[in-house]
Amino acid sequence: MDLHINNILKDLEKDDFQAYLLTKFTNVEYISGYRPTSFAFCIIKENPIIYASGMDMELAEKNSSIEVKEYESFEVIVNELKKEGIKSLAIEPSLPFSTYVRFRDDFDVDSKTYIDKQRMIKTPYEIEKITKATEIAQKSFLQLDILNNNCTEKEVAFDLVRHMIENGASKESFDTIVTSGANSSLPHAVPQDKKLSQPILIDWGAIFEGYCSDNTRTIVYTERQHEIWNIVAEAHDKAIKAVKPGLKCCQIDKVARDIIKDYGYADKFIHSTGHSLGLDIHETPGFSLRDETIIEKGMVITVEPGIYLEGEFGVRLEDTVEVSSKANVIGNLPLRID
Amino acid sequence: MDLHINNILKDLEKDDFQAYLLTKFTNVEYISGYRPTSFAFCIIKENPIIYASGMDMELAEKNSSIEVKEYESFEVIVNELKKEGIKSLAIEPSLPFSTYVRFRDDFDVDSKTYIDKQRMIKTPYEIEKITKATEIAQKSFLQLDILNNNCTEKEVAFDLVRHMIENGASKESFDTIVTSGANSSLPHAVPQDKKLSQPILIDWGAIFEGYCSDNTRTIVYTERQHEIWNIVAEAHDKAIKAVKPGLKCCQIDKVARDIIKDYGYADKFIHSTGHSLGLDIHETPGFSLRDETIIEKGMVITVEPGIYLEGEFGVRLEDTVEVSSKANVIGNLPLRID
Repeated sequence: MDLHINNILKDLEKDDFQAYLLTKFTNVEYISGYRPTSFAFCIIKENPIIYASGMDMELAEKNSSIEVKEYESFEVIVNELKKEGIKSLAIEPSLPFSTYVRFRDDFDVDSKTYIDKQRMIKTPYEIEKITKATEIAQKSFLQLDILNNNCTEKEVAFDLVRHMIENGASKESFDTIVTSGANSSLPHAVPQDKKLSQPILIDWGAIFEGYCSDNTRTIVYTERQHEIWNIVAEAHDKAIKAVKPGLKCCQIDKVARDIIKDYGYADKFIHSTGHSLGLDIHETPGFSLRDETIIEKGMVITVEPGIYLEGEFGVRLEDTVEVSSKANVIGNLPLRID
Repeated sequence: MDLHINNILKDLEKDDFQAYLLTKFTNVEYISGYRPTSFAFCIIKENPIIYASGMDMELAEKNSSIEVKEYESFEVIVNELKKEGIKSLAIEPSLPFSTYVRFRDDFDVDSKTYIDKQRMIKTPYEIEKITKATEIAQKSFLQLDILNNNCTEKEVAFDLVRHMIENGASKESFDTIVTSGANSSLPHAVPQDKKLSQPILIDWGAIFEGYCSDNTRTIVYTERQHEIWNIVAEAHDKAIKAVKPGLKCCQIDKVARDIIKDYGYADKFIHSTGHSLGLDIHETPGFSLRDETIIEKGMVITVEPGIYLEGEFGVRLEDTVEVSSKANVIGNLPLRID
């Protein structure tokens, strides 16, 4: 049986759970190779099984490494589990309340992060896919002609996605952010139908064979913009240099945050320093204020400090690092674009 | 105070709840006008409030019609609610288990569908947006040159999205499906890097000012494909004709399903006949086997029967209807494309 499943069976045994219910699409894919396009119930137990929606059966049977049955009803699943003597059921923290209540009367139910924890540590296969996604995204960025061009934010965002797809991505890994001028102070700005102004902030990523990439660059023009850019670049570089297995994630956040604070912009850095990525664009752990997770080899995490000056502009710089004995930046796109 | 909020306050009072917690982005938007880009806790009570992520504060303060505070911690929210004497808290069915557990010790918590129910009935404003989204999507479809062209599925999907954005959509309302040949038997097929084969199935939609559209057309060639197309078209047309306020949703599903069954393809129609749409691409109620919801004026629901022949091909035909005294098809794209 697959290593991922074996690890979870050990976790279950240790905590006295008899089965683990997964419904999050990327978790089901991680375990089975089949990414649902409609609802699915994947149950890890001695004989793992997926109950897939009828409309997914052809796909599931083609891609899943574990047994697939067609979903009929909750009652069928509950009865099957009871017939096997299962009394305790671990669930994902993300399970919707309405699904939880369908199981809580018949089983001892509690949430466990077994799968998140396993997904924290990427295999060489996964790192290869993330690297390829990053390379596609960065190559596509360099194909843009924004600096000599008179186009709108929406057009640039669209061109970037087109390049990524032409370069082999299946799609963008999240809604591409191309924002400029005062709007760049919104960390998740939506590209507008207006000509680019200054500075230009682009946050983008590709999906390659299921795996995400994530980068941000900000192109600055005025002296004030350069001043802020330099602070963010210092926070970015020093945070990356600080990454080391054995430290806590929050310590990396602190490195970036302290630098920005020292320059007087503590309250303008309004998000975490970074998040893991993989099959999902946001995974755990993150380089954040309260994340006490110990950094380990094989984690793949973004480092993306930013300073946001409402009414003026924002600067964010983001790379994704793979943790080995230190942090290796994935890809080789220069931080300064001009 | 806003009508939507007033209705929910009445629901709460009726069921003896003192507050309603919303975290689903489109629910928060429906209530406040602000669509979160990061987590947010919207609490409907006498003095409704949104706790938004720090990175969303600028956006939230700009767009929200109700008070916004910056999120600090769960504890702060719990303490505020307790200070106001709140003991019972309604939640959304979709609330993640891990959020539910943060509230269950301090409040009587249960899930309620107040907001889903309210969102079932679209206002004239909402119907206007959905109609506009549909018009953009259909116009964009007609700009495709697939019939005279030698392109790949991925290229067609990409062109369609490009046209939609050029015609005023903010983005596609879901991953555009362009599939052809044997792959069209997968209801949620992913566009491939291969030249179009026959038949061609396209399922696509636009988002216009937050609201979704959804259509499917299948272009058939062989006699066998035409035969199946005619059955699906009959199911599509008769299901739409059957829609009437006062009937149950499942009765419409039965109309479509019975026609397909009469032709001997009962087990090849592997999904529901339709789903509501609005701010989300999938909303309740749906025209499905078990949905007993009474059809009402103002609902906007898709009708999308299909027949899927594994190893051969699939045919699906989808329109979105607005319920008045009967079902009005939104847009005017012919069902038969050739």
